Amino acid sequence: MQQLTVDLGDRSYPIQVGAGLLEENPFFVDLVRDRSVAVVTDSHVDALFGGRIERLLGPAAHQLIRIVVPPGEATKCWDALDRILDRLLVERFDRQSLVVALGGGVIGDLAGFAAAIYQRGVDFVQVPTTLLAQVDSSVGGKTAINHPRGKNMVGAFHQPRLVVADSGTLASLPPRELAAGLAEVIKHGAIADAGYLDRVAEAMPRLRAGDGAALAEAVVDSIRIKAGVVAQDERESGARALLNFGHTFGHAIEAGSGYGQWLHGEAVAVGMVMAADLSVLLGDLASADRDRLRQVIASAGLPVRGPSWPAAHYLSFMSIDKKAERGTPKFIVLEAPGRARVRKVDPGLVALAIAANTG
Amino acid sequence: MQQLTVDLGDRSYPIQVGAGLLEENPFFVDLVRDRSVAVVTDSHVDALFGGRIERLLGPAAHQLIRIVVPPGEATKCWDALDRILDRLLVERFDRQSLVVALGGGVIGDLAGFAAAIYQRGVDFVQVPTTLLAQVDSSVGGKTAINHPRGKNMVGAFHQPRLVVADSGTLASLPPRELAAGLAEVIKHGAIADAGYLDRVAEAMPRLRAGDGAALAEAVVDSIRIKAGVVAQDERESGARALLNFGHTFGHAIEAGSGYGQWLHGEAVAVGMVMAADLSVLLGDLASADRDRLRQVIASAGLPVRGPSWPAAHYLSFMSIDKKAERGTPKFIVLEAPGRARVRKVDPGLVALAIAANTG
Repeated sequence: MQQLTVDLGDRSYPIQVGAGLLEENPFFVDLVRDRSVAVVTDSHVDALFGGRIERLLGPAAHQLIRIVVPPGEATKCWDALDRILDRLLVERFDRQSLVVALGGGVIGDLAGFAAAIYQRGVDFVQVPTTLLAQVDSSVGGKTAINHPRGKNMVGAFHQPRLVVADSGTLASLPPRELAAGLAEVIKHGAIADAGYLDRVAEAMPRLRAGDGAALAEAVVDSIRIKAGVVAQDERESGARALLNFGHTFGHAIEAGSGYGQWLHGEAVAVGMVMAADLSVLLGDLASADRDRLRQVIASAGLPVRGPSWPAAHYLSFMSIDKKAERGTPKFIVLEAPGRARVRKVDPGLVALAIAANTG
Repeated sequence: MQQLTVDLGDRSYPIQVGAGLLEENPFFVDLVRDRSVAVVTDSHVDALFGGRIERLLGPAAHQLIRIVVPPGEATKCWDALDRILDRLLVERFDRQSLVVALGGGVIGDLAGFAAAIYQRGVDFVQVPTTLLAQVDSSVGGKTAINHPRGKNMVGAFHQPRLVVADSGTLASLPPRELAAGLAEVIKHGAIADAGYLDRVAEAMPRLRAGDGAALAEAVVDSIRIKAGVVAQDERESGARALLNFGHTFGHAIEAGSGYGQWLHGEAVAVGMVMAADLSVLLGDLASADRDRLRQVIASAGLPVRGPSWPAAHYLSFMSIDKKAERGTPKFIVLEAPGRARVRKVDPGLVALAIAANTG
């Protein structure tokens, strides 16, 4: 097992990465001892790992319940949230209770938000079981549900007490989910570490084949980058925004096609291509670097072209994005592999970058 | 104008107390300059002060909208919350936007919670227009909505950037609302400052008559006590719990009779009598001190007896209270006027304290 730390003063927490962490884990067991524990998961993940986590934590906990929601992005909604909160109330969970988010990014966001607002906040633990969640969404305390008018528009910053990334859970991932996770791995390299981007490109065949050691290494390297950014800027007033590279375009694809049609990582993959193209249009990035990034994305088995909507349709889903300020969207652009910055961009250029990468 | 500060490091904020703060207020105007501002209020308060705040802030703001919800505790619900969030999205409010809570405790809790979760948190300003909100709920960052299974069960700690307590707004308060506010004034004296409790008792006729100077003095003294407690213990892991004196009983009265039948302050008034009686039963408080407290409460025009339900009915609404730990309720008891502490109490004694003060 490797252990990293997100350094946030009295809200610092450890991230464990390794195989078998859901089978033996004294630290996790100690954390839940004598507490009421709610494991929030979806029906698919529950079938795979629900029993395992109950065997690990059940004997130490005061009580342990499982709250099982339907799989998929559509579950990040008011109804599922209220169902979780209602169950916690019915079971008389108090402020000392603990919520475990067992699953991918959807579960982490939903269960984390429930923990953030139940009785004004209870502890929670992230147990990410997808590559996307392990390398990205489980670290940093962003929680949210979607609103019919926009993705992640209702949420909270609520840091977990612990992140348990068991590499063994990745073996069960379908290839499409694995590829979606690689999008965020590539993103971390693209914005922060050109050498890491090269290593990922080289390891791509092993990563796509689900090689445990290669994946664990990518998880550790990605988390190291993300944890460093989050520690600098917990609430995204500055550097943390760079982690949204590709996401403004990606959100438009997800929202415009109805949440759940595109996987988040797939939408981000196309978004990164568009953002790289925008960087070239702005004169910030060499076109060879854009081409190289696109090639790495494609080699991960990810899409590099968005739905063939008019650019205006994309733009209509961008202007209320959380990164917008008074309707003028900001974008994260690349200056070189491993170096990104935020800038306001004329919507005309954005439309060009979109039009060049659709259909 | 008097100004106090809640000292919470980089989340510290000023509290302004005085007459005319909604007519001239350079600090408040500067805070909203060039920002999108949503004034959340109820129809009753809007009719009284909506125009005034729009005249004060409108010229400086980038845009200003008013979101008007129905008055009353029933408004602290999912539906009203979603209506506010939806409106903010329709108006394309971004993360730099600011929410102003204009009204009593219900509005402060609801609008504050909306600000806490809109795009993972935007700034908000409390403009309390009732005595209850000025002396208590507007300070400290507690926000929440009610759940059918319990009061304030869903919420967040989200500190305002500024509290504007315009004493002029209290002139419009009906006597019943004024009395409800005095319950929290009395509470602050009872738990933290015996001398203040004496001064309040002495000033009671002027306070009940709505004397501006007497009220402003009570507001300043109460806020000073509350701000000190909050600065020590922002998230209620220790000393802040003492501010809940009378509230466990009071919540049972509010929840058991359907939110809105009893005003919060009225329920707390009876709750304080029950809690003082419990303190006597435990041998912590002299019975003369309990009698004195009950007399001060009665002199404020507040009820001192709860609904004539069986004690078990009260208890059924207490065990899932947020202050409960694994079903054993904790209570704040008095050791003397001005001195309180938390202790776990046998439910049998609690039932006795209830039964002695109902009907």
